[in-house]
Amino acid sequence: MARVMTAQIRQYTTPIDTSVPDSKRKYIPSSGTYPRGFRVSGTHVGVKPSNTTFPDLALISSDEPCSAAAVFTTNRFQAAPVQVSKQILEAREGRGIRGVVVNAGCANAVTGKGGLEDAKSMSAKVDECNGLNSTGGQGDSSTLVMSTGVIGQRLPIQKILSGIPTGYSNLSSTHAAWLKTARAICTTDTFPKLVSQTFTLPSSPDRTYHIAGMTKGAGMIHPNMATLLGIICTDAPIAPSALQSLLTHAVSRSFNSISIDGDTSTNDTVALLANGAAGGQPISSPTSPEYTAMQSILTGFAQSLAQLVVRDGEGATKFVTVRVQNSPSHSDAKLIASTIARSPLVKTALYGKDANWGRILCAAGYTQGLSPGTLVPERTSVSFKPVDGSAELKLVVNGEPEVVDEERAAAILQDEDLEIVVDLGGGNQGEAAKGGEDALYWFCDFSHEYVTINGDYRT
Amino acid sequence: MARVMTAQIRQYTTPIDTSVPDSKRKYIPSSGTYPRGFRVSGTHVGVKPSNTTFPDLALISSDEPCSAAAVFTTNRFQAAPVQVSKQILEAREGRGIRGVVVNAGCANAVTGKGGLEDAKSMSAKVDECNGLNSTGGQGDSSTLVMSTGVIGQRLPIQKILSGIPTGYSNLSSTHAAWLKTARAICTTDTFPKLVSQTFTLPSSPDRTYHIAGMTKGAGMIHPNMATLLGIICTDAPIAPSALQSLLTHAVSRSFNSISIDGDTSTNDTVALLANGAAGGQPISSPTSPEYTAMQSILTGFAQSLAQLVVRDGEGATKFVTVRVQNSPSHSDAKLIASTIARSPLVKTALYGKDANWGRILCAAGYTQGLSPGTLVPERTSVSFKPVDGSAELKLVVNGEPEVVDEERAAAILQDEDLEIVVDLGGGNQGEAAKGGEDALYWFCDFSHEYVTINGDYRT
Repeated sequence: MARVMTAQIRQYTTPIDTSVPDSKRKYIPSSGTYPRGFRVSGTHVGVKPSNTTFPDLALISSDEPCSAAAVFTTNRFQAAPVQVSKQILEAREGRGIRGVVVNAGCANAVTGKGGLEDAKSMSAKVDECNGLNSTGGQGDSSTLVMSTGVIGQRLPIQKILSGIPTGYSNLSSTHAAWLKTARAICTTDTFPKLVSQTFTLPSSPDRTYHIAGMTKGAGMIHPNMATLLGIICTDAPIAPSALQSLLTHAVSRSFNSISIDGDTSTNDTVALLANGAAGGQPISSPTSPEYTAMQSILTGFAQSLAQLVVRDGEGATKFVTVRVQNSPSHSDAKLIASTIARSPLVKTALYGKDANWGRILCAAGYTQGLSPGTLVPERTSVSFKPVDGSAELKLVVNGEPEVVDEERAAAILQDEDLEIVVDLGGGNQGEAAKGGEDALYWFCDFSHEYVTINGDYRT
Repeated sequence: MARVMTAQIRQYTTPIDTSVPDSKRKYIPSSGTYPRGFRVSGTHVGVKPSNTTFPDLALISSDEPCSAAAVFTTNRFQAAPVQVSKQILEAREGRGIRGVVVNAGCANAVTGKGGLEDAKSMSAKVDECNGLNSTGGQGDSSTLVMSTGVIGQRLPIQKILSGIPTGYSNLSSTHAAWLKTARAICTTDTFPKLVSQTFTLPSSPDRTYHIAGMTKGAGMIHPNMATLLGIICTDAPIAPSALQSLLTHAVSRSFNSISIDGDTSTNDTVALLANGAAGGQPISSPTSPEYTAMQSILTGFAQSLAQLVVRDGEGATKFVTVRVQNSPSHSDAKLIASTIARSPLVKTALYGKDANWGRILCAAGYTQGLSPGTLVPERTSVSFKPVDGSAELKLVVNGEPEVVDEERAAAILQDEDLEIVVDLGGGNQGEAAKGGEDALYWFCDFSHEYVTINGDYRT
């Protein structure tokens, strides 16, 4: 059966509001509540000559020095801004950071020593605006740097350096400024990705803290090179050492748990700044109730941000959560979840609204790197969990196919959102590992021509 | 820029000759030279009720008992025919095999004990035609079984068992029979994949040996579940133990070196039968010149077969060889080659005829599981090797971008065939590992809508 195909042509730069696809408009907040002491701006500098309109230089600035932490790409080819930001964080041990400067349109990756100098000069220029004298990329620098765009080309550095003072003078704490800044870090994204929320901590339940963040990801189906950037700011007081472990935990369960690989581009970076402007007791010990509360808040917040990247998946018609549970270990559960989330055949079946559990089971079966005994066919079960809270639809129970109520399956698959549950039954530890570890992963479906060929395989 | 998109709708069963795409017709041989003592047939039984015409039951039969070996899927969920064929080969220690029976249309996977009985009954039925009394799946069975198609459904076993005697009576050694048999194992393939050739061995240079094989793969872009089957027959005399190591070596460098994963479906199987009908000195010792010669012949032959699977890649406009050389180890070279071959962004760039070396380098950079020191950015070089034998076009030399002659790059990328060379410069062993290990991998490009979005990223 042929499906109607529509050509989706993406502009390289995020379109202005009026061209955001209707279906994505609901993900753009119309208001927000932002952390105290942070100001931001998005400014047009035209990194790509073809970009004559859209903001492509973002500044995120704290009035006071922050604790800062970041998770960087594991790619062996690390872009200049990644090397420079790492160097700054290490030299300063995560203290005294004032902000982040980001350009879109050019990744400043595989650009040699000149590229490193460019990245340092961006950092130093912002420091200069802050009245600080720095060399960039050393212990005296207080501005992190990020870039996203094409690899192997040098930055138009003079344009950027000239634009930084303009961007600095535009710094503002309004919702409009945050939204414009979120747009300035985009490349092929179809909408800016911004989330903000308030929270409290156990030690001072009457004090309101704020957390806000922006991210950009790719609109591509499986962009194992498209850069993912994330910047999260909070006015809670968090010590540098605690900040890094909090972020590492959160990123593992959010940006590194979506089918758009968060750990493979030359430029991927997620940074977290905490300026403590809301006051209260600083979070430091990982065993404190404050830390535990903050970990839960930050992880949930990072998941909200990361899910927006999945919502922007090219041609996506489904937003799918895969939950692997009752695993002997979290890491094995995550490996299985990620393998299912990346399977093109699972993705096309979901687009075709086909309850093809065979593809899910098969993808689980070829997961690489599992500990022996994690995946035992006769202990493995698969079900669909509808978003309306009704009972799970069992597809496979202990390795044996169920007789599936195809009508109910079809009804469940009509929804945009779906949760797939893979229960490992404790693996070869059986009951002993039940109630064991789980992992969540988020992904979208494959659509269009790929599916005209594969989506109808089973019927 | 929008590209013209054409809907390619694939029938589940291989079309009759007249509907083979024009561009693929050249891969179907019009004649062949087949190993003595083998007869084959392709018969219509209608495993899928919707298939009322096309052959979907294949028999490959040797008049005399053969040595046999096979490489099976590593998926943890192994289909019934895989379990049964393994059991037969193990019980017989690779001796006394008379042939293979294959059905298309249903994978007989995740079908429990009933599925195992079905697979055994197929084996036993062919044995019965051969005048042998067997139970199937035991040491008394002499017929291997393969299935390909949908997972989780039982075979229409009576149809198949009724069809086997018909298929047996159709056995023939003609080219037409081989071609029809090759077609009978297909599912979404757009053309039957059959190769045959003659060869000699050092010990008897005047004796002509034959080798012939058929394969099926998927027409999908990255079908990590679509079953890959391969059956290779030769009239050379090879001892069972030598046969298995010869096949393992060949499959690693052929079916497991294409971007359509050969090791992940529930059913993947490549089998090799040697009946010795051409006479001569049996090959047994791995240190003999005969063995070395046979290894080279078989590996090259398996590569020819596996390359046909890549040629049938959905929407493919390019046939790309990636060669990773001067690596400290073959296994690391292969890991890097396979990561490049699977990168959607490399594939779209090739379709867009864009000499985007950044994507190649980046994919190499995120290869998982490498030994430390294999990939050293400042020792890594990338070039395009044109098929016309002209000089390589250097893109990156020792980690630094070259100024690329874009006109020459464009000319090279006009050709359907291309070789990408990634030189690791010996990794951190430098000159000491030069002249070291290499690995080859074959893949095709991504086309169509995916590319309207990603293919023009750089311009």
